[in-house]
Amino acid sequence: MINQLYDTSMSLLTDLYQLTMAYGYWKSGKAEQEAVFNLYFRKHPFQGGFTVACGLSSVIEYLQEYRFNEEDLAYIASLTGGDGNRLFDDGFIDYLRKMELQCSIDAIPEGTVVFPNEPLLRIQGPILQCQLLETPLLNLINFQSLIATKAARMRLVAKDDALLEFGLRRAQGPDGGVTASRAAYIGGFDATSNVLAGKLYDIPVKGTHAHSWVMSFDSELEAFETYAKHMPNNVTLLVDTYDSLNGVRHAVEVGKRLRAQGHDLAGIRLDSGDLAYLSIEARKILDEAGFEKTSIVASNDLDEYIMDSLKIQGAKINVWGIGTKLVTAFDQPALGGVFKLAAIRTDSGEWDYKLKLSEQAIKVSTPGIQQVRRFRDASGFVSDMIFDIETPLIGKATMVDPYDFTKNRSFDESVHYEDLLVPVFAKGQLIYKLPSVHDTRKRLQQQLAHFYKGIKRFVNPHTYPVGLEEELFDLKTNLIFKLRAGNQA
Amino acid sequence: MINQLYDTSMSLLTDLYQLTMAYGYWKSGKAEQEAVFNLYFRKHPFQGGFTVACGLSSVIEYLQEYRFNEEDLAYIASLTGGDGNRLFDDGFIDYLRKMELQCSIDAIPEGTVVFPNEPLLRIQGPILQCQLLETPLLNLINFQSLIATKAARMRLVAKDDALLEFGLRRAQGPDGGVTASRAAYIGGFDATSNVLAGKLYDIPVKGTHAHSWVMSFDSELEAFETYAKHMPNNVTLLVDTYDSLNGVRHAVEVGKRLRAQGHDLAGIRLDSGDLAYLSIEARKILDEAGFEKTSIVASNDLDEYIMDSLKIQGAKINVWGIGTKLVTAFDQPALGGVFKLAAIRTDSGEWDYKLKLSEQAIKVSTPGIQQVRRFRDASGFVSDMIFDIETPLIGKATMVDPYDFTKNRSFDESVHYEDLLVPVFAKGQLIYKLPSVHDTRKRLQQQLAHFYKGIKRFVNPHTYPVGLEEELFDLKTNLIFKLRAGNQA
Repeated sequence: MINQLYDTSMSLLTDLYQLTMAYGYWKSGKAEQEAVFNLYFRKHPFQGGFTVACGLSSVIEYLQEYRFNEEDLAYIASLTGGDGNRLFDDGFIDYLRKMELQCSIDAIPEGTVVFPNEPLLRIQGPILQCQLLETPLLNLINFQSLIATKAARMRLVAKDDALLEFGLRRAQGPDGGVTASRAAYIGGFDATSNVLAGKLYDIPVKGTHAHSWVMSFDSELEAFETYAKHMPNNVTLLVDTYDSLNGVRHAVEVGKRLRAQGHDLAGIRLDSGDLAYLSIEARKILDEAGFEKTSIVASNDLDEYIMDSLKIQGAKINVWGIGTKLVTAFDQPALGGVFKLAAIRTDSGEWDYKLKLSEQAIKVSTPGIQQVRRFRDASGFVSDMIFDIETPLIGKATMVDPYDFTKNRSFDESVHYEDLLVPVFAKGQLIYKLPSVHDTRKRLQQQLAHFYKGIKRFVNPHTYPVGLEEELFDLKTNLIFKLRAGNQA
Repeated sequence: MINQLYDTSMSLLTDLYQLTMAYGYWKSGKAEQEAVFNLYFRKHPFQGGFTVACGLSSVIEYLQEYRFNEEDLAYIASLTGGDGNRLFDDGFIDYLRKMELQCSIDAIPEGTVVFPNEPLLRIQGPILQCQLLETPLLNLINFQSLIATKAARMRLVAKDDALLEFGLRRAQGPDGGVTASRAAYIGGFDATSNVLAGKLYDIPVKGTHAHSWVMSFDSELEAFETYAKHMPNNVTLLVDTYDSLNGVRHAVEVGKRLRAQGHDLAGIRLDSGDLAYLSIEARKILDEAGFEKTSIVASNDLDEYIMDSLKIQGAKINVWGIGTKLVTAFDQPALGGVFKLAAIRTDSGEWDYKLKLSEQAIKVSTPGIQQVRRFRDASGFVSDMIFDIETPLIGKATMVDPYDFTKNRSFDESVHYEDLLVPVFAKGQLIYKLPSVHDTRKRLQQQLAHFYKGIKRFVNPHTYPVGLEEELFDLKTNLIFKLRAGNQA
């Protein structure tokens, strides 16, 4: 969706405090100081055991068009402080006018399985620019990763069944619908009802008819017949407007006529009532009439838990239509991604490592110009290690559990690995070729297949090991001690 | 936000089944048949006692630009069914190309308090057009009404405190952030951090600095001093980067220097830890130093329940910064608004009333060309009555509880009332002047003041009476009996 948003000043899609800080950096001569920020989350959504990275394509679109136009600048110049005087002077407005993005960005590709504390995005460049980008980058990555993860959970339950996304009407705005459709597809859905998402992102679109179609005719049978007559190659009939099983019998009548014309009844859809009971009875009616291949589509506020329960009950559903619970990530509608300063280049050219303290260990950030190394053996992926790319890793690599320093593990050079972050922008220039949405969708399923199954269960999932490389762990620990001591003073 | 979205084909922002139904209507000669649909919800969000109507301004923007351009039409023409053949023929594509909206829309103005089953929007026009608009209208109204309601709940707790919306980074996409900022303002917030929303909707914007500002300096005091030096008219200092109460003391130091220069310390912000304890201690430090007017801003995953709890604990917070829980409506991220066919004009010119049956009484729709009459006496609003505008209401009006027909109440002609739906579009032409966002915000507070306080509490709120006018009740009941009988056959 973001590509439609450009024409008017998407550069203002940020928090005012990013602009006031930018002004402060500029006024105090720090605007061009080189900084490194990491974008990461602290906890998997949905009490799950994995998360799916998504949103990088929107980040790329956003950054390629990044500029302040005259309308934006006039608005910024109009803002005032508590005394009614301007917040920003003309010199700063002019600085923004001439500014070109100089940031380098490395990112974990979309469709990759990721874990807490791993940088999904690392941004390096003038601190003023990094700061301005914090809000939009978080907005784009947080939401899309959340939805791709939710969709992937539903795909795990669905196994080989078809999954259709129907959520636009309950989504959080047009964009909440359209980008959710793309994220759901990456997460493993097969198609969407959302025509605009279909067009923008090359996603298959599906749909047949609603209750209002049936209600607009004098009888259900007439409604079904009329639909089948005009769209014989797309006949999935919604059977619950009046009485679901009667509706299935009407659908069978229409199906017989379709066959006589060389077409077939693709499916029936149940949208209310006891979906386990109704799908089993509908399957019997269809099978007895020779419609063994006709699909049974179910919808009605479904999510992965209800799907799981229906499967355990033996429901005969093979196509799932999912809306609200998917596109809003209903049980946890936000991923708490953060964007933390990790290092600043000093005048002498050295990195000054930075972290944010907190009383809660989980909220203390990690310094460093971070990369993630994923190790694998014959069984699949075994461990991720976050390390500072400035530290040469020679021979054996040892990582420490960031929340329990007594736990560590080592890998020697013979172990296979992949470094997850890839270069996307180099000093403002795009150097990454975005894979197609279809390849990204495949990548996720390949990734998931290589992880231990325990991370994919919903209740008390297995915790996949993510460690800090030992030098980075020591750096962080020493910095915490130093900062805590400094603040006793 | 929706105004940015037009340039590319926002007419495709719909479900495919709206297009397949449209095609079916067109092929079967029903495209121009006049229909009436009502957009309403069935249950208040958040287990609350009221809902705030919001989103009409986006609906107006959307409809004013409604058209299918050649790119849209080419995409629609490219869609295929199960056999690989086209879904839509060229005649239909041409029909869409030439189509101009002919719908008349009546709506309840934004900022009005509304209740279940009341039509927020009534749309009347060619059934093909009404059907295409179902999805976008639901998307726009559902989300914005949800957020305005959430914001209004926070305003009730905040009383005269300032409320700032900070949610963009965790919102469901750019649009989820920008339209949420507007809905939050209508719901009673004072300002947003979202610069783009500020520009687009004339909402005050606020913001100062983040932890990264502090971390980028060698000491907190240096960070505070630098900030205050360059933006002396906008100094609210975030004090919890290292140690909150030490931070307050550093802020006081800076505040003294500001005063010496003729400025002042506007506020300090707490973003972690025990906000009740820290705000009380911070207030003491500030007051002892003579900073009685310096605000204490609190943030950190707040919602109306936590605010209420903090107030009960005596927290000294007078500015609340709220993000995730507001802009995603975290505890219920979707309003389940629906769009139901209520009548079709027959060839003879009479209305054929329609309803959707369901096993659950709450899910049976109400037929009729609906209007809502809100009665008031000296105590305020006392009752709403949904009626069919085709029924002449002469003298006494009697309404029936739709879920318990033994309960009814009557009002004679002397009782004051207001009819809530106002004309917005007449046969596709805009005839409504949208009030300013500021007037809409005021309207809501005036509305809320006139309702019995019981509807505004969070736990087991009072149910405000909404009845069906008795003729409409009888019409609905008879139609249900008829449809149930018809489906036994």
